[in-house]
Order: sequence, then C-alpha cells, then structure tokens
Amino acid sequence: MIIHLKNDVDKQIADTIASDLNAFLLYKDGKYVIVTSSHIKEIQENHQAYVDTFLNFDHDIQLSSRKYLQGTREIKIGDVIVGGCTNNTLLITGPCSVESREQIEQSAQLLKSLGLSTLRAGTFKSRTSPYSFQGMGSEGLKLLDEIRVKYSLKIITEVFDSSQLDEVADHADIIQISAKSMYNQASLKKCGKLNKAVLLKRSFGATLQELLQASEFILSAGNDQVMLCERGIRTFETKTRFTLDLCGVAWLKQNSNLPIVLDPSHAMGYAYGIPDLSRACMAMGVDGLMIESHPDPARAKSDVHQQLTHPAFIKLYGSLKAIADVIGRKIV
Amino acid sequence: MIIHLKNDVDKQIADTIASDLNAFLLYKDGKYVIVTSSHIKEIQENHQAYVDTFLNFDHDIQLSSRKYLQGTREIKIGDVIVGGCTNNTLLITGPCSVESREQIEQSAQLLKSLGLSTLRAGTFKSRTSPYSFQGMGSEGLKLLDEIRVKYSLKIITEVFDSSQLDEVADHADIIQISAKSMYNQASLKKCGKLNKAVLLKRSFGATLQELLQASEFILSAGNDQVMLCERGIRTFETKTRFTLDLCGVAWLKQNSNLPIVLDPSHAMGYAYGIPDLSRACMAMGVDGLMIESHPDPARAKSDVHQQLTHPAFIKLYGSLKAIADVIGRKIV
Amino acid sequence: MIIHLKNDVDKQIADTIASDLNAFLLYKDGKYVIVTSSHIKEIQENHQAYVDTFLNFDHDIQLSSRKYLQGTREIKIGDVIVGGCTNNTLLITGPCSVESREQIEQSAQLLKSLGLSTLRAGTFKSRTSPYSFQGMGSEGLKLLDEIRVKYSLKIITEVFDSSQLDEVADHADIIQISAKSMYNQASLKKCGKLNKAVLLKRSFGATLQELLQASEFILSAGNDQVMLCERGIRTFETKTRFTLDLCGVAWLKQNSNLPIVLDPSHAMGYAYGIPDLSRACMAMGVDGLMIESHPDPARAKSDVHQQLTHPAFIKLYGSLKAIADVIGRKIV
Amino acid sequence: MIIHLKNDVDKQIADTIASDLNAFLLYKDGKYVIVTSSHIKEIQENHQAYVDTFLNFDHDIQLSSRKYLQGTREIKIGDVIVGGCTNNTLLITGPCSVESREQIEQSAQLLKSLGLSTLRAGTFKSRTSPYSFQGMGSEGLKLLDEIRVKYSLKIITEVFDSSQLDEVADHADIIQISAKSMYNQASLKKCGKLNKAVLLKRSFGATLQELLQASEFILSAGNDQVMLCERGIRTFETKTRFTLDLCGVAWLKQNSNLPIVLDPSHAMGYAYGIPDLSRACMAMGVDGLMIESHPDPARAKSDVHQQLTHPAFIKLYGSLKAIADVIGRKIV
Repeated sequence: MIIHLKNDVDKQIADTIASDLNAFLLYKDGKYVIVTSSHIKEIQENHQAYVDTFLNFDHDIQLSSRKYLQGTREIKIGDVIVGGCTNNTLLITGPCSVESREQIEQSAQLLKSLGLSTLRAGTFKSRTSPYSFQGMGSEGLKLLDEIRVKYSLKIITEVFDSSQLDEVADHADIIQISAKSMYNQASLKKCGKLNKAVLLKRSFGATLQELLQASEFILSAGNDQVMLCERGIRTFETKTRFTLDLCGVAWLKQNSNLPIVLDPSHAMGYAYGIPDLSRACMAMGVDGLMIESHPDPARAKSDVHQQLTHPAFIKLYGSLKAIADVIGRKIV
Repeated sequence: MIIHLKNDVDKQIADTIASDLNAFLLYKDGKYVIVTSSHIKEIQENHQAYVDTFLNFDHDIQLSSRKYLQGTREIKIGDVIVGGCTNNTLLITGPCSVESREQIEQSAQLLKSLGLSTLRAGTFKSRTSPYSFQGMGSEGLKLLDEIRVKYSLKIITEVFDSSQLDEVADHADIIQISAKSMYNQASLKKCGKLNKAVLLKRSFGATLQELLQASEFILSAGNDQVMLCERGIRTFETKTRFTLDLCGVAWLKQNSNLPIVLDPSHAMGYAYGIPDLSRACMAMGVDGLMIESHPDPARAKSDVHQQLTHPAFIKLYGSLKAIADVIGRKIV
Repeated sequence: MIIHLKNDVDKQIADTIASDLNAFLLYKDGKYVIVTSSHIKEIQENHQAYVDTFLNFDHDIQLSSRKYLQGTREIKIGDVIVGGCTNNTLLITGPCSVESREQIEQSAQLLKSLGLSTLRAGTFKSRTSPYSFQGMGSEGLKLLDEIRVKYSLKIITEVFDSSQLDEVADHADIIQISAKSMYNQASLKKCGKLNKAVLLKRSFGATLQELLQASEFILSAGNDQVMLCERGIRTFETKTRFTLDLCGVAWLKQNSNLPIVLDPSHAMGYAYGIPDLSRACMAMGVDGLMIESHPDPARAKSDVHQQLTHPAFIKLYGSLKAIADVIGRKIV
Repeated sequence: MIIHLKNDVDKQIADTIASDLNAFLLYKDGKYVIVTSSHIKEIQENHQAYVDTFLNFDHDIQLSSRKYLQGTREIKIGDVIVGGCTNNTLLITGPCSVESREQIEQSAQLLKSLGLSTLRAGTFKSRTSPYSFQGMGSEGLKLLDEIRVKYSLKIITEVFDSSQLDEVADHADIIQISAKSMYNQASLKKCGKLNKAVLLKRSFGATLQELLQASEFILSAGNDQVMLCERGIRTFETKTRFTLDLCGVAWLKQNSNLPIVLDPSHAMGYAYGIPDLSRACMAMGVDGLMIESHPDPARAKSDVHQQLTHPAFIKLYGSLKAIADVIGRKIV
C-alpha cells in the first residue's frame, strides 16, 4: 500500500505511522509518503486522521508501477533529461571496459563527433572466470573522470558489490547495477540513499516482476532516479548470447513508470546482428539505447565479438536517427 | 554434402549415385543436385567423374544455408514475390480463426482498403484443450476460397497433421505449418512434394538449428518455396505469452537463405504491445509480418486478447509504412 | 465441468444434453458422463432432472485430475497391470530403434533374463534431420510382432502422425505418442477411439498444464488407458541433452490421476549419468521407467550416446530392485 | 593451465613465474602450484627448468575439474567430514530464517533427536522484495552462535554481499553463498582467503559451466574447502517454484571434484513434493542434502509453503536412511 499523508502531518507522526506498519517513509513534494507491504490492504483506525489518500496493490510492484504514477518518471543526468514529457532517447556508447587512456579518448571523440552525451565503460567487471581480465578498478575510474571533464561527457559505469558503490558514485553520472548483481540488495539499498541516477540492469535469469521489485529497493529508500535496462535473458537458444526480451519491454512500458534503456549488444553477443537489433530497439520507442563500440574490437580485453567498430557505429547512428525522426523521438 | 553433378549426367546415373549415398536427388536449373548427410565429407572415387562441384557442411543445415546460397531465396505467391532481389515485406493480416462469412469478409475488406495482398485465417486449429473451439475445418476452407476469388486475395492457412495437407493445399496460396507441428516430419515431407509456398513456423520449444533442419525436410524433397516464421519462444517469463526472439532473427538473416516472416501477435499475446513490437519487427528489415486482426476481438472464438481491432491495425499500418520507407523496404 | 447423469438416463437424452453443451459424452460403469468446457459452471435448468452429480474445475484439466478421481487410474497391458492399487513399476527397456532381427532378439533376451515384460523400440522415428536414419517403418513393426509372439513380451512403439496410428495399433501393446507430437491433436483424438494403452510423452517444450490437457483429448474421446511420460524439458542448460523435471513429477503425482512413467535416457542423453538418474526416478515412486539399452550402443543407428550396454543395464537393475524393495514397489 | 612447480622452487621464483603469467599462486602439499588462464597452452622456455608437471584445459574449469583431481575433494567441517573417501551424506536441516530463540532451539532439538550434525538458518536474507522480512541480521548470528555451543552443532548460514562476510565467517561453520549472489565475485574472492568450508549455491539462472567457474574464484584464491549446491534452475515450468536439475548433478559428478549438496526445498517450493524429491536426491548418491524444516511452517516469516513440519521431517528421515543403506552411503 502507498499512503500519502496529509500536508500538515509532521515528521514525528509520519515516523510513528511508518514504524507501526514496518514501512518505508518518503518525503516528496512537501508531504510524507508511506510504503508498506502490499499485503496491507486497509488503513488502521488510529492512522485515518492523518491519511490523505492511499492505493492498494496486488503485489510488491508499487512505487515503480504505472498504477501509482501514470507517466514515465523524469531522470536528470546533469543537463541531460530522459523520461517525463521529453521524447528523448539517450544513445549511450563506449567500450565494454576501460583499457587505456588512448582507447577511452577515442571513444570520447566518437561521442563528441556525433553530438552524443553519455559514455559507457566498465572498470569493476563482473566476469564469470577468475582467469579473465577483471577490469582496471579504481585506476579506470580516474581515467573516466579525466575524460568526463575534458570532453564534457556524462559517464555511466558499473558496480557489482556494495563495497564499490561509494567510490563509483564519486566518479559516475549514472551508476549501473550490473545484470549479475540485480539481486544484490546491499547495493540496491545503498543506491537508494544516493542522489544520483541509477541504471538497473535486469538479471538474465530474472522475471519482470523481480526486476521491478529490485527497483523498489532503490525507490523505497528514497532515490527515484531509476532507469531499467533490458539486456537479454537466458533461454534454451544458444546460437546467440542471450535473447533480447522485447515482449517484456512492451509489458514494462505498459506497467512501469520507470524509463527503459535497451542493451542489444549483450543480448546478441555478436557484432553482425547489432545494427538490425538496434533499429528494432529504437522502433520500440524507448528512453535509451546502450550499444558497445570499441576503437579496435578485435583487440578488446573483454566482449571481443560484440563491440562495433567506430565506422560501424557511425553508420548505424544514421539509420537510428532516421527511425527516431519517424516515430517522434529525439536522440540525446 | 551438396553435390552438383555435371550438366550431361543423366537421371539414371544420378539416381544410382543418390542411392549409393542414401541421399536426396533434386533437379534444378537443368542439372542434378544430390544432398547427403553432412557426415559425408569426400566424393567416392567411382563418383568423381560425374561431379561438377561439391560443398561440405559442419551439420545438417545445408540447402537452407547462406553458405550454399548467398542471397535470400525468391518465393512466388502468384504475382506477389518476396525474397530474392525484391525489398518486399509481405504484411499479412486477418483473424486467428475463420468464424463466419461476415467476419472474414470484413477482414478481406480491411486488406483491400490498405492495398494489402494476403489474408490469414485458420480453419484447422491446433488447440491445447479439447474443450475449446477447434476451428471450422473444411467448411472454413470453402469460405476462404470464396473470399479469395471475390477479393483477389492470397490466402494463408494452417495444417497440423499430414492428413489435412491435400485439402488445404487445394485451397491455400501459402500453407502454414503450425508451430506445434514443426516437428511433424510426415507433413514436412509431404510439403516437399507440393509446388506451393510453405510458411514454416518455429516451434516455441525449437532451437534455430532444429527450425532450419525442419526446413531441410521440405527442401530436400524438392520444394524450395519455403519461408520461416519466428513467433516467440517459451522462456521463464510469463507476463507475456511467449518471448519474440529477434536475436534469433538476426542469426537467421546471417546464416539462412530462406525469407523470414515475423509474428508478433502470438509472441506477445496481448494487443497493447503489438504496435510497438510490430514496428520493431519492421525495423529488423524482414521479408514479412503476420499480425492478427479481428473485426470484433472481444467476441473472437480464439486468441481473444491478442487480435487488433481494424482501426488499430489501420493506425499501425501508417507507422509501419513510415519505417519501411526509412529502411528501404516496400510493403506488399 | 464433469456431469454424471442419473443411472436411468438413456442414450438419446444423454446425446441431447451433450450436444446442447457442445460437450463430450462418455459411458462408464453403466452411466453416462458428460464433459464440457471448464468455463461452464452451472447446470441448465432443463438438464437438472437428469443430473446425478457434477464437478466444477478452474481450467481444462478435468478427467485427468485427482480432483475428479482420487487414486491413480489402472492401466491393463494384457496381464500386466500398472497404477490402481498395485504398487507396480513397469521397467521398460530396449533400443531406441529397431535395426535388425538379431539386435531386437538380443534385447528381448535381456528382458526375459531379468523377468521383465515390456520391450521398447521405435520404427517410425521422429528425427530432427532428414539426413539421419528415419526408422524401419512397417518392416520394423513386423519384426516387433514376431518378437512379441516368440518371447511373450509386451511391445511399446511410437507414432508421430495420425497416418501411422492404425498400423501401429495393430502391432503394439502400448502406443507411444512421441514427445515431438504431443500437440498433434489428430493423433490424440484418434487414440481416444482405440481400446489400447497409450503412453503420452511430454513435449520438451510443454508445460505440465499442456501435458494434462493433451491427455484430455484422449480421455474425452473415450479411452481412459493413458499413462504420462516425463522425458526431460528444454532449458538453458546444454551440458546435458535435456533437464529431467522431477519437480514436475511431484506435481503430477499430486494433481493427476494418470500413472507416470519416467524416461531418464532422453533427459540425460549420455549413458554415464543414466544409472544415478534411474535410481532417482525409482526413488520417486513412479509407475514406470523406460531406459534405453542396446546390444552394441556404439553402433546404434540413433541415440548412440545414451543407450546402456546390456551388462550395464543388468547391473543397474540390481540397484533399482533394491530401492524398489525399500520404498515398497514391485518391478514388473 | 595448472602448473606444478618442482619441490625445490622457492617462493620468490614462484611469485615471478605467476606474475609473468598473470596467474594465481597456490601452495599445497609442500609445493607451489600456478593456475593461469586456460588460453595458455605451453610453458615458456625460461620457466621450463622450474616446472614439474602441467595440465592443459579446454576452458576455465581447472582446479574444480575431475581432469585435474580424480576423486572428490575432502571437506572438513570440524569433526564432520564429507567427500574424499567417506561415503558420508551430510543431512542438513533447519528453518529458512532465524526468527526467535524458541524457534531455533526447537530446530536444534530436532537435529539432536536424529543424531544429525548441521543446522541451517539464514539471518542475512536475500529477498526479492523490500517489503518482506529481511532477516534478523547480526542478532540472528548471535543466536546461532549460542545454539551451536549449547547443542554442539555445526552451523551453515548465508551471505549475499562481501560486506557481510567477515561477520558471518566468525559465527558459521559453513558459509553459504546464496544462489542470488553466485556471481558476486567480491564475495567469492574474499571466501578464497578464508580457511572455512563454503557452500556455493548455483544461481537459478546459471549454467553448470558458470557454477564451476564461480568455484574457481574461491579455489584459485587458496581455499579448497568448497562444496556445490544445486537448488533448482528457472525454466518455463511455473507449477513448481524451480526445476531441480538432476541431469546437471549427474554431469557434475562426472566432471567436477567438488562435493555436491542438493536442496530440494527451494527447487520444489511446496512441502507436498519434498519427501519424494528428497528420496530421489539421496538415490543420486550425493554428498549432502539440505531440507528446510520449521517447528510451525504456517507461521514462518519466509518460505511458508516449502518447509516441512518436524514430524514430516522425522518420517522422511526414516526412508532416506533406508535408501542410504541400500546405495552404501552414511548419513551424518
């Protein structure tokens, strides 16, 4: 249940009610909001005097639901805005991992040449083998910081454990919760205390229900700057790396108020299919696309097969822009 | 292995070689083609004099592979052509099932009003419960026949057992192998003996490898008029009916020479998501789209939730056409 | 809804009621039973005088449900009985395919040496490639017939299209609906008209709901001699051929009245895992096990990797018997 | 590649070689072992003088592979031993979560009454909703500690973020990596530095390959006390909570040297199926079983449906013991 308290209810009373209900207390637009388990269906008699409105839910998709908030939430990444009343589609690109200053400079230049705003690159990499490249860690973060200043770019980079969060939050404009740590509630709760945009990637083994419930950990802790990312789910089909779930995206657009970013690169796993899939993603009318590119994919230290060359990305950009025009969206 | 025999080899010798190799014999463009298991890797010494060229394969995706035939095969449905050098996208619509003359006339009129060519409607329905509507059977086929003549439309309708094939072949322009019977080799082999376009739907439990191997049953029996249809695979996600596998479509475009038709209706299962998904399918640049529509979806005898109303289809058509223009395809 | 009519209701009236309700009419233990769609929840006023009892269902799992029939149905395969009040476990073995008289004789001798009753072997093989061995067809059926007489064995063999059913029914004691044709309603309906045990294999892409609904096609057409077979479902895990769904088996035992046979061979796909899995299956307390064995697996024409040698099967038999003893079941 | 250096090679040289190869250095049985990426296939010339033996691998399943170590690793949990040459099966039980002193005392008494050694109970719970019970945290750990001393039991409890690990390691005999954090490499690497048994649960979305690669993070960091736990994977079947992958277990027994513990409770999700499934698990001949039980399941704060009552567990224990006897295993 989401309860909006009356305007004149003060913090002490709001705290008491939240505590009574074992619930979360939020403060928004000048009034207190209480979020309980969806199992609670009625207002207690002793609370009724303080309650303005309340809303029941069938399950724990509450703050993230379109039932609660009709439109799409607006996310501010500095001066770049997605969701809300904009028809912006954030086109993010960059390499899988930060590997060197030279590499990341080339990526930054690609973005600038196309007028794009947001660079992706990982430094804490959640790899499936200890014997692979594990990312540059803190050193990579510092490189990203320099690039951000030098090129006036927004930076999105990932975390996979709560221990990395403070450091990443200091250097990134958008914190990416990696797919493999979507269930890491320690990170989610900590993100809820930050005042920073979060891109929550769907675990490849997670249902849509679980994805939205993961977002509720962040929202209920007070941070409403959450975007969702579909990046492919694991199915029986192994000719491609994962299976991009665009049916699920259609469901999210209908049922959730969070902006949606699509990552065709990890879904497909092979560069040859990325242009067609990216165009399909754009035609879905989503709030963002994240496409891996690399100055020299064959020599990348991770995701060798799926990163586009810069010329391939530039060519793709043209057709994405044409589709965006046709469906009334603006690439930012 | 696919073996092209020399031009002057006669049928008797070709038969002998095919028989020696327990292989299929095809006659194409004035010469004999032999298709063996992919396990065979070398030409026998006593056959060498008759062989023009041959091609080895890692597995039993042979005639359907882009390795064998670089481009996309051309399919002729009367005067309507897809694949080959055309950039045509066949936009098929119509109801799940034939229910009445009035209903199917309305569908036909929808098609004509938009200048579309091909009407879909099932009469032999492969339902999962014996207690649901099982389709109008032969009676439905006769209705479709009348409509075809009256409105000069192409008709696509489905079979799910070899016993229905002769009758359906007499009335349909395209035979649809239903997803639930993709593995029915009796039907596939019989389709291979027909001179008629076949739309082979991927079973929701089938790998891409198996889909192409199913097409090989038809191709190896002599019918090269085969199109593939992706209509959603079964995954752990149940908020939507199935999961449309567009990564798989990207793989098929890269690896198969058969035209590809997409069916977002069965994948999604709910009308609200069909427009976005259909636009995504169109943006993939495929050879066909099959979208269910019904004059009165709420009263449909099957697939109540997923059929578009006619006004909704007309609106969708506009945006599909705009995307087709942008990516250089023509709706037929 | 399942409606039991009063004892004195005659066929004409029963027919009329069934026709009114677009329902199936069965005759069992001296009275008429009508099975409608589960959407029907109330008895029409004009039918009430004829109705003894009726039962509502949430969905189309009706005749096969434990809600309708508390115990497990009894299946008679000549003098061999499974289900009902027996604690029999039918241990079926034999090769994937009939390949030669010598091979099938050796399999028969294996069964006789262990006192087992039922030989499996396919002659109409539903293969995924046209370039593989497709089975011996009618010739194989004749061989099985000879073996049945010579060794007094029961024979189980498969069909995958309705066109094969009459011939197979003439030669087999149990008709096996292959996993790939579980959705072939033409075969299911035809099996419903036979007076012969049917083993309905679960499609590797089918839900338990669909499996039971498939059984309803047979049961509602009048044949109650139906057994279910779990043989592995398709999942993201590809180190093994399929994933044996024993959780699903526990659900079936709780919810269905049909005897259950397990096929660990097709689930695993590799001989090394079959003994452990077979012991697990036996410990589940099921009505049957079907395990592939071959006199010379390495030279088998199909399923080379998964068939046990005869010595391996004999060794396995010993431990299966010990577990059967412990859990109170008898191998037949 | 795994390289065993010669006995007389000292630490400095071993360090240099490991550093050259960007590899892990282990010290075992008096000599140094180096583990590189499996991409490395040959010994560098300047290292050859120091190398005793080396072993190549096709992929990054190395230390955990049966190719490297033929038998099953021996795990010591105080005086309780599993794996190695024992035929012990560790039968773990207890509630999903620590809820109160009274509850956990009753669970401890259940274990003692049956002569069992190891109590499970979670205090840091990885829940999918922020609005559900999140576990008692540190307070629960202290309760477990008291119980351990009072009843001389071993305690297994879970972590889902690296930040919890030090505290849990201080109180538990076995650290359980929860399924949802199998990919949390921060926790895995930290476990590798502990001298304590670790139960690594398979993520319900993880392949067997990934499960073993996750174990390599622990093994390569120096802790060889690792057990694997299969607890059900996510499939399209939703009548049960997950699908227990016993085919996968057969594969693990063949390919990995790590002991295997099965958790039928989370796989099934419903108490009615647990006894049959537990017997199946025991018949697989595995090193451990973990079965949830609760003094009063209907009032549990988590996993209400799947926990056995104590009488049901006691009854189940009897049949597990009988099967253990038959297959030559001893319950500890």
